[in-house]
Amino acid sequence: MFEKLTVIAPGLLGASIGMAAQQRSIAKRISVWARRAEARQVLESKDWCDEAPPSLKDACSGSSLILLCAPVERINELASNISPILDSNPIVTDVGSVKGKLSRHCHSVLESKGRFVGSHPMAGSEKTGMENADANLFEGNTCFVTPLEETDSSAAKSVSDFWISLGANVLQESPERHDAIVANVSHLPHLLASSLANYLSTTLPAAAKFCGNGLKDTTRIASGDPQMWLDIIVQNRPEIIRSLDALQNEIQSLRTDITNEDYFTVFGKLAKGKAFRDQLDP
Amino acid sequence: MFEKLTVIAPGLLGASIGMAAQQRSIAKRISVWARRAEARQVLESKDWCDEAPPSLKDACSGSSLILLCAPVERINELASNISPILDSNPIVTDVGSVKGKLSRHCHSVLESKGRFVGSHPMAGSEKTGMENADANLFEGNTCFVTPLEETDSSAAKSVSDFWISLGANVLQESPERHDAIVANVSHLPHLLASSLANYLSTTLPAAAKFCGNGLKDTTRIASGDPQMWLDIIVQNRPEIIRSLDALQNEIQSLRTDITNEDYFTVFGKLAKGKAFRDQLDP
Repeated sequence: MFEKLTVIAPGLLGASIGMAAQQRSIAKRISVWARRAEARQVLESKDWCDEAPPSLKDACSGSSLILLCAPVERINELASNISPILDSNPIVTDVGSVKGKLSRHCHSVLESKGRFVGSHPMAGSEKTGMENADANLFEGNTCFVTPLEETDSSAAKSVSDFWISLGANVLQESPERHDAIVANVSHLPHLLASSLANYLSTTLPAAAKFCGNGLKDTTRIASGDPQMWLDIIVQNRPEIIRSLDALQNEIQSLRTDITNEDYFTVFGKLAKGKAFRDQLDP
Repeated sequence: MFEKLTVIAPGLLGASIGMAAQQRSIAKRISVWARRAEARQVLESKDWCDEAPPSLKDACSGSSLILLCAPVERINELASNISPILDSNPIVTDVGSVKGKLSRHCHSVLESKGRFVGSHPMAGSEKTGMENADANLFEGNTCFVTPLEETDSSAAKSVSDFWISLGANVLQESPERHDAIVANVSHLPHLLASSLANYLSTTLPAAAKFCGNGLKDTTRIASGDPQMWLDIIVQNRPEIIRSLDALQNEIQSLRTDITNEDYFTVFGKLAKGKAFRDQLDP
C-alpha cells in the first residue's frame, strides 16, 4: 500500500484512478491537484479524494506515487513543473497515449528528484471528464508500462504492480515500440473511422436514415474529442503516417483485386480479416 | 392479415421473418420451404412454421406473399423457379442486399404470374443461420423497399406495410439509388473493417494483446461470412469500386494534411467526422 498517492490534473482517467485506488485500498491517502478552483471544489466532495490543495507542491509533498493525468501535450510541462518541488523521491508516471519523446523528456527532467516510468492505460472512451469516471475503467483492459533501458527496474515494477492492482493487464514495451503499436491498433482505427464519417457526411448527409449496426460500430470512435486526437497526431506523427500508408496499400490492393474480378484473392482477404477479428473479444 | 405467407430458404432473415410474423399475427398460415430435408425436419418443430412441404409448388400454392430469403446470388434463380408454379398472383419480395439487376430480373420473370417488389432489411448480423433467428430482428432497423417505376404501386405499398408491421423503418428508393447508398453505408464499412483486420494480422499478429474497444468496434463487422460478402461484392462491384476510390481520396487528403502539419485542417476534419457520428445512435 502506498503512503500517499497524488493525482495531478484529474479528468476521466485521473478521477477513475482515484476512485479505483480508494475502492481497492491501494493508498493510505489520495491527494489531488487540479488547476481550476471549481474543480478543486468538486473534488472536496468526492469520497475518494482526501485533499485537493491549491498548491502543486502540497499535493506532491511526501508522495510515494505521482500520476500525471493531463492530456499528452501537457505532460512534459507538468513534469518540468514538479521536478524542483519534489521532496520524497517519488515514483512518477503518466497516462499519455504517446510515449517516445515524452518518456525521455520526463526521465531527464525528473532525474535525481523522482523516478519516471511512463504508462498508457488503454481505457479511454468517447466520454471525457471527471463526471464520467469509473472505478472499474481499467479492469480487464491493457495498460502499457514503458520504461527506458536506463529506468530503475524496481520503479518499473512498482508502476506495473499498481496497474495490475487496478485490474489492468500490463504489457512492458519500450516507448518507441509502444508508439508503433498504438499507431496501428488505436490511432489508425480512429483516423479510418473519422475519414469514413467525414466522407459520408459530404456524400450522403442523410446517412443516419440508412444506418445499420455495421456503420455504427465502424464509426463509433469518430465521436472522440477532436482536440485530444489532434494532440495525439501531433505527438505520434511519423508512426501515424507510416500506418496510414500501409493501410492505403492494403485497400488499394483489395480495390485492384475487385477491379480484376480476382474473387479467389478477394475471398482469401475477407477470410483472413475474419480470422483476425474472430480471435478478439466481441 | 395475409391468408398465407411463404418463406423460401430460411436462414437468419427468413426464420426471423417467420417468427416475427407469427408473434405479430400478420398471417393466418406460414408455409416454409427449405431445400434440405434436415432443415425441413427442424422447421416442423418450430411453432411459427405451420407447414414445411418438400415441394416448392406446395409451399407457394395459394400464397398471398412470398419471401425469397436466399443469399443474394441465388434469388434470381429462385424467382425463375417459382414463376411457372404460382397459382394465386402473389406479391413476391426478397431480402437481397443488392437490388439493381436483381429487381429487373425478378420483375421480368415473374410478370403476369406474381408482382415482384424488392426489399432489403438492414438487419444482418455477424451471426447467420436459423438458430440465431430473432422475432425482434427488424424492430427499429431500416428496411429498403425498392419498386421499379413500372411496379404495381399497391404491391409496393403492401410490402412496405408488411415490414412496418414487423417494426422496421421503411425507406422507398429506386434499386439503383439503393445500391449506391448501401455501397457507402454498408459495403464500404465492411471492406474497411476487413482491410484493417487484414493489415493488422500481417503487421502485428499479436494485436489481440493490445486491443482496446476502439479497435474492437472498428473491426467488428470483419467477422461477417466471407462468402456472403464476396457475393455482395460481385453483385455491387461498380458502386463498391466508386466508394472505395472516394474513401481513398479522403484518407489521402488527411494524410497530406498531417504530412504538411496543417493541423487547422486536420482539426476541422476530426470535428466534422465527430459531428456526423454524434447524430447516429450510439
